[in-house]
Amino acid sequence: MDAAQIKILAFDIFGTVVDWHGSIAREVDAMQLGVDGDAFALAWRGGYVPAMQRVMSGELGWTLIDDLHRLILDEILQRFGIASLSEEQKRHLNKVWHRLDPWPDSVAGLTRLKSRYTICTLSNGNIGLLTNMAKRAGLPWDCVLSAEVFRAYKPDPATYLGVAKVFDVAPEEVMLVAAHQSDLAGARACGLRTAYIERPLEFGAKQPKDVSPDPANTYHAKDLLDLARQLGC
Amino acid sequence: MDAAQIKILAFDIFGTVVDWHGSIAREVDAMQLGVDGDAFALAWRGGYVPAMQRVMSGELGWTLIDDLHRLILDEILQRFGIASLSEEQKRHLNKVWHRLDPWPDSVAGLTRLKSRYTICTLSNGNIGLLTNMAKRAGLPWDCVLSAEVFRAYKPDPATYLGVAKVFDVAPEEVMLVAAHQSDLAGARACGLRTAYIERPLEFGAKQPKDVSPDPANTYHAKDLLDLARQLGC
Repeated sequence: MDAAQIKILAFDIFGTVVDWHGSIAREVDAMQLGVDGDAFALAWRGGYVPAMQRVMSGELGWTLIDDLHRLILDEILQRFGIASLSEEQKRHLNKVWHRLDPWPDSVAGLTRLKSRYTICTLSNGNIGLLTNMAKRAGLPWDCVLSAEVFRAYKPDPATYLGVAKVFDVAPEEVMLVAAHQSDLAGARACGLRTAYIERPLEFGAKQPKDVSPDPANTYHAKDLLDLARQLGC
Repeated sequence: MDAAQIKILAFDIFGTVVDWHGSIAREVDAMQLGVDGDAFALAWRGGYVPAMQRVMSGELGWTLIDDLHRLILDEILQRFGIASLSEEQKRHLNKVWHRLDPWPDSVAGLTRLKSRYTICTLSNGNIGLLTNMAKRAGLPWDCVLSAEVFRAYKPDPATYLGVAKVFDVAPEEVMLVAAHQSDLAGARACGLRTAYIERPLEFGAKQPKDVSPDPANTYHAKDLLDLARQLGC
């Protein structure tokens, strides 16, 4: 694969660029609610795919991730027996997804990749969430793309093909960079190139993730600095 | 007006942040087509509002500005008697709108404004155009918003209110920054704050523009550095 044929790098965000598990677990632990931050983070994220499926099946109308996060939060606060939070505290906690910390290599890796490619997000997170996150964390996107732009969640082909259409390039000139094989498979089915990023601790130290290579991907990298090195940036 | 109440600065682009007239005139003059670059730039821009009106009236389906620019270009190439361009040359010339040069104060002004506010585009230009322009010119947007996101062109209220919705803030926490009173009036009618930027040479040195203040605007600034100064950035 000639890296020169790729023009656009589109990045999955949650787990790939930022550490949702560690960030949420730390913030929940710091709130001293008497619950385990690790379990709370996993439960919150666990509600994510089912909630998006309710939207994509038509059961719910188009709903931003901020609002889906809140639906899930209300449910897990009950499940974890937390009744002490005010509405303002719940609103603030819900926006922890805007305050996720990047993995240690993310800012440096993206900065190097940006020198040669147009780098954009391609996340199911909404535009406001992704922008607030980038501003806080220093993620140097050329452009913030989101399911919100395409009115469809990944792995809907409208999202992957939407990136190529936005930039008026062929699908094979776009590469999706993600830590999730299912996301990459969806992109590949649309003709995009794919780069897998190992994030063995995405679900926390207690649940190390299988990060074995899938030869179907165009690149397999340890982290974003490794990807930059492989792409000659 | 307390500048601290404003959270988001949304910028008009063509004429406000970049010099469409000078950039296009220079590129057309350099092509040595035997036409006057100044007149060609004005004619191209002159087709812009009527073309958008064809979309907003429903005569044309939703159409990106890149495609509207091409419709107008084909028409004015004929009008100026230019028959020598290949399809590839026309495609390249059409993308001159991606290669517009910023006004001399734009990058420094935006960089200062970004230190305190979330800065985004709010342009009728499409996302790809705005992203390519920003990458080439070094415009440091936190987020690229466009008519393409809202599927409506300014001055449709869906665009101004769309910015507030994307960032989950009240309309009065958003300020539109633009060199066009009509754009600012549209934003004001939706409850946004407004800042007028003088760009007396937007239409070239032969057609200086009236840049008198309208007291209805929240701010009136000579350029983006002056706005940064007024906002204490």
